[in-house]
Order: sequence, then structure tokens, then C-alpha cells
Amino acid sequence: MDKYVEVLSTYSYEHSRREVPRAFLPEVGLGRDTRMISIPERLLLGPGPGNAPPEVLEAMGKPMLGHLDPVFLQLMDGVRDKLRKLFQTQNEMTLAMSGTGSAGMETLFVNLVEPGDKVLICVNGVFGTRMTDVAARCGTEVHKLEIPWGQVFEVDAIVEEAKKVKPVLTALVHAETSTGAGQLLEGLAQPLHELGSMLVVDCVTSLGGMPVKIDEWEIDAAYSGTQKCLSCSPGLSPVTLGARAVERMEQRKSKVQSWYLDLNMIRNYWGQERFYHHTAPIHMLYGLDAALDVIGREGLDARFARHREAHETLKAALEPMGLQYVSQEGYHLPMLNAVSIPEGMEDAAVRGRLLNEFGIEIGGGLGAFKGKAWRIGLMGYNARTDVVERLVDALKQVLA
Amino acid sequence: MDKYVEVLSTYSYEHSRREVPRAFLPEVGLGRDTRMISIPERLLLGPGPGNAPPEVLEAMGKPMLGHLDPVFLQLMDGVRDKLRKLFQTQNEMTLAMSGTGSAGMETLFVNLVEPGDKVLICVNGVFGTRMTDVAARCGTEVHKLEIPWGQVFEVDAIVEEAKKVKPVLTALVHAETSTGAGQLLEGLAQPLHELGSMLVVDCVTSLGGMPVKIDEWEIDAAYSGTQKCLSCSPGLSPVTLGARAVERMEQRKSKVQSWYLDLNMIRNYWGQERFYHHTAPIHMLYGLDAALDVIGREGLDARFARHREAHETLKAALEPMGLQYVSQEGYHLPMLNAVSIPEGMEDAAVRGRLLNEFGIEIGGGLGAFKGKAWRIGLMGYNARTDVVERLVDALKQVLA
Repeated sequence: MDKYVEVLSTYSYEHSRREVPRAFLPEVGLGRDTRMISIPERLLLGPGPGNAPPEVLEAMGKPMLGHLDPVFLQLMDGVRDKLRKLFQTQNEMTLAMSGTGSAGMETLFVNLVEPGDKVLICVNGVFGTRMTDVAARCGTEVHKLEIPWGQVFEVDAIVEEAKKVKPVLTALVHAETSTGAGQLLEGLAQPLHELGSMLVVDCVTSLGGMPVKIDEWEIDAAYSGTQKCLSCSPGLSPVTLGARAVERMEQRKSKVQSWYLDLNMIRNYWGQERFYHHTAPIHMLYGLDAALDVIGREGLDARFARHREAHETLKAALEPMGLQYVSQEGYHLPMLNAVSIPEGMEDAAVRGRLLNEFGIEIGGGLGAFKGKAWRIGLMGYNARTDVVERLVDALKQVLA
Repeated sequence: MDKYVEVLSTYSYEHSRREVPRAFLPEVGLGRDTRMISIPERLLLGPGPGNAPPEVLEAMGKPMLGHLDPVFLQLMDGVRDKLRKLFQTQNEMTLAMSGTGSAGMETLFVNLVEPGDKVLICVNGVFGTRMTDVAARCGTEVHKLEIPWGQVFEVDAIVEEAKKVKPVLTALVHAETSTGAGQLLEGLAQPLHELGSMLVVDCVTSLGGMPVKIDEWEIDAAYSGTQKCLSCSPGLSPVTLGARAVERMEQRKSKVQSWYLDLNMIRNYWGQERFYHHTAPIHMLYGLDAALDVIGREGLDARFARHREAHETLKAALEPMGLQYVSQEGYHLPMLNAVSIPEGMEDAAVRGRLLNEFGIEIGGGLGAFKGKAWRIGLMGYNARTDVVERLVDALKQVLA
């Protein structure tokens, strides 16, 4: 008998079989005979995740495959191809990072900047703020361009600031999930490129719900998440990098500070080399593949139009109820509706009643908007007028 | 009409509806009417992922919940509690990181060391080597203690080296997935603690398949993965940190270089504060919860005994076929059987036939063992004698 196995035997027979299972059995509200906590059906209208369509849930329950299985590699190739269409880009380096949207944010910073680099971050909400933190942890010199939360940036103001700072990278958020404001991106890249700066964009909440035109807008790198308008489960972060970003990556002098997020290695797994880096999250990729197929069958235009229609229906119902949008007029996101909480209404109580009595989740405010705003998400699968009607009915009863 | 929505309309109606869906439809081997690539049933006997039990797949198909939903938070509490039992620890800071096992490795390094710190890494395979890379990217002074691949370390040799190096942290791998060697950990922590060093252990492949006794062995921090002996899908990394590691984390002078993996923030989401950090991977946590319940119902002792029995059955069948274990005699892991490829056998051809004719995946060699060894995983759900029989039957036909 192996020495090792022998030692293991000593360890594992210390407890009697009767004893261990009892101690190990779940205690927190899980019955012994229950397979898992009973998961209620919610209508998820917060800042994400939203509900996933049946196709995605079905895919997530499929049998396991190895991460180098030819069938799985074919699925990954399909995911890349479909992500390119969704990002409206030809970028070779388009793939899904094995982490949530915030891992995608960190991926771009750790790969594209080096200690001492100057970066310009536009801040008008939580996610711009988060970028300054991530960039600072990469040892960069962070310059902030700040405007009040809910406002959007003028292209000229960003370019003026970039002229002063001379950053290697300028970053901003396309769809600020914390405020519901949508940032125009057209015309921004060219002047930044002339100044020697890359343009990096957070598309976590925009991708799949409104146009994200990486190539036409000349965005150098962007990241997203799977749980917003893609209507997949959270856990992956689609990223895309153009020629300028890839060149920058290849010419860096220092190693990428994160091994897990090092695109120089990860590209060789997603590429034809198939070098093992880390084990790909198999079921998350099944889910993403299915979510992208659902989008493909609907078509991008139809999908974006559906988001706008749901948003307009919601807005038309909310404003007469005294619920005012907190983001800049004219720049409201279709998929994230942030409205101020009326005087006298108790934030948590209203959201609690919506959840417990109607099975509807809406989001509270984040950061500066905590306790002051509600965030109503109409994302992907949930961007529908019948969903809006169900929410408005419930809201009317709760706010009455 | 919103200015923003107006601009969106211009963008999104550039293409006719007829055109976009066609262009967007999956092309890479996916039929237009297929929901997704057809996923074959494989018997996964490589280095992980292995097959997941039906309970896990069922859980992964459950409806979405919000990441702050009370029911989901209850599920997370259950996961923590069950992970503690699996790690055999009372550690408050026990949770699942939102990335694969390699993210867990990086989590411990970025949180526990600071630039300039001396670390001692024991290297006898791919994953020890990976730790040296991760540690170096944290700006540490890395000292390697190397022995041939497949060998295991003597406790005394590690302690002697630590006396010379005086590291703040000593790290090694419990179950080296690249070689199939199992490292004894008893008696190691105390002398290291006396020298002022923490002990960090990679338990990716061991957890759930053999005893991992964090408290009894006084391990300061450990990480694992979900796709090995837990028989869940890859995508989460269970970690546990004891008092010494938490104190070290709290007393660090510099910020953790990774925002995504910063435990000072993540602990406040898993703790009762429930501060939002990143969006938790909902379905991955459903899957992990179900996987831990399956383990709980079986009991740890029974599970470990099953792994040993499957291993012994396999070993008894392989050795007469001329397939020799590459790891040190007496220290063969039950869940990862690395055997040398006999002279004249073509690695890829044999694995290809097993996969294509028998639906069985086994793993190739990694690093120094590439082309020289096969890795046969008997992990979690697959650690069964009937599985071994199916593999041995197939192997006999292919090697005949």
C-alpha cells in the first residue's frame, strides 16, 4: 500500500462515518432532503443581473466538456465570432475573460499601462471612480476629469483635458450603471489618437442593448459583462482590443502585473495555439454562447429598438407618478432608468414590498445616489413593454 | 424624444433588419436552427474538469437571482459554511473567489505579500512553477526550492531552506496535477511559523478527494478550484485564510495590486455588511452549493475512501499493462494518476481514439511531461470502480 494512501487512511478514518456527514450537512436553512435552497422566480429589474432566457438556462445545464475538447474549442471559436459581431468589430483579439465585468476593467488596465504612465479617467459615477482605483493600483499617474454624477461629458472637454495631461490612455464609461446616463463616443477617438492616447471604454451595461461600434468609433479597447443586456449569468467579461492596444501590449517593458489576466498568455488559448493557461469556465461559456445566439436570432437593430421602446414606455409611466430621472435630460439610457426617490418614501421599504409582494427586484442607489435613487433595469430579455406594465402596476400599488 | 435615443436610432437603423440578423447568425459550424452546438456526453478522466453530478447540472439551470437577493445571500452563507467543513477549518474568512483556481492562487499572493518581500516557493511541477511567476509579478524576491518533477518534499528540507531565506511566506502544492504526486503537509507549519513565515498551500486538486485539514495542519491560507474533486464546473476558487494571514492582510502598507481580487473589499460582501464589490457569479454559486451538498450527503470519509478505492483499482490494472506511475513511489495521488507513455505509443493518437471511439477523455502531459505522460483523473463524481473498468477496457483495446 502506498505510504501516502496509508497516511490518508489514518487521517480520514479518525471520524466515524456516522459523525462526519451529520456535522457536514448543510445547516443554514437547508433541509437534509432538499437538493438546494428553493430558488424563487423573480422579475429582475435592477442594475443586473436580469433574467436569462430559457435557452441560456438550458445551456447552463448541459453536460461537462473538457477545456481542450474539440467540441468545446469549436464553441469558443463561435463565441469569439459572435462577440465580434456584437462589438461590431473585426478585432482579432476579442474574447471572454474568466471573471465578471470588473475583471474585464482590470484586464485592460493591467495589460495596457505600465507604472509611471499617465492616464486620464472621466468620472461621472461609480464605474469611472472604480477605474481610477484600478489604474492607480497599476502604478499609473491618474488624472481625473470629474463632472457631477448623472451628467455626460462633452467630447471637446475630454480632448482639452487630454491636451494638458498627455495621457497614454483615456478611459470612460459608455453606460454609467450608477446614474443611467449614456455617453456619446463619436468623434472622441481621433483627436485622442492624434495626442498619442488610446481610448478605452466600459461597455458593461451598453453591450447588447444599444449600439457599441468599436471599429466605426475607433475605440482601442473595451470590456463588458454577461449579466446586463446579454442576459446571461454573471461571470464572464467580453473584451476586445484593436491594433493600437495590441501593439501597446506587445511593446510593454514590464510584465503584466496579473498572471490571471495576462492577455499575452490568454490570447494563445483563445487562438489556434490552444496553449493551456487556466481552465476555461465551461458552463459560463455554454451560457454565453446561447445568449449570443438568442441575440443573433433577434438581430441587433430589433434588439436595440426593443430596448428603446421599453424605456419610452417606462418613462411615460414614471414621470406622471413624480419619479424624475436623475441623469442628464436627453441622455437617458434605455436599459438603466435611474429615478429619484420621492420625498417621504422609504427606499428599503418600497423595494422590500416590490420584492416580497410582487416578486420584482429593482435596484437601490449606489455611491452618491444611495438612498436617493432607484435604478430600474430593462436589460436584454427583460426589455419588454409587458414587463414594464407589470412593474408599473406594482409600483402604483406600493407607492399609493 | 431624447437626443440620446435619437442618435441611437440613427445608428441602429443603418442596417436593414433583414441584413443584420443574417450577418450576425453563427457561422462556425452552427446551424441556423440549432440552439447551440450539440454537447456530447463524455467520460472526463483528464486533470479536470471531470463530470458533474446531475444535482450540479440541475442547479446550474435554475432561474436567476439578484446578487443581493436575500435568498441568494442565504445560499452564499450556506456555501461558506459548507466550504469550512470541507477545508476542516473554523476560519471566518472562507469564501469562493469569482475566478478559476489560478485566480485563487493570485488572490493569496496579491493579498499576503508586498513588493520586496521574500517568499519561498517549493517547485516540483507546473503549479509550483506558476506560483513563482505569480509571486514575482507582485514584486517579491522569489526563492525557489526545486526538486525533480514527480518527487515530493521532505519537511526538513523545506524548513532548512526557510532558515536560510527567512521568507514571509512559504508556498507549496498539496496535489501536483502535473505529476500526480501528493505532498505531506503535517509538521511543516509549526517550524515555519517559528521562523516568521506563513504557510500557503495549493489545494486545487486535493480538496474534496482527500483530507485537507487547514486547522489541524495550521495552514495559514489555501486555495482550491471547483472543477476537480468538487465535481462542479470550473469558474470559482474556494479560499480560506487563518488569523495569521488575515492579520498580515490588515497590516499591509501598500494597496493590494489587484482590485478584483482584493480580499479587504470582498470580505465585506461575503460578510454581514454585504457591501457591493463585483456582481457574484450567480449560477456558478448555485452549482458549487449543490456540489457541496452532494459531498455533505456522502460524507468526507466515505468520499475519500471511494477515491482511494478507485485509484487502487486503476493502479492494479495499469501496472500489468506496462503503464508506470511517474510520481514518487508511495506518494501517488488517488485522484490524479500520471503514468508514462510506453515506448512506441503515440500520445495524441491514443488520446484521440479514446475520445472519438470511446467518448473518454484522458489528459496529456504538461510542461516537462508533455508527450511523455498521460494524466488520468478519478475526481469526485468519477472516482468509481465502474468508471475505472470502462477506462481500462477502452485502454486495452486502444493499446492492443
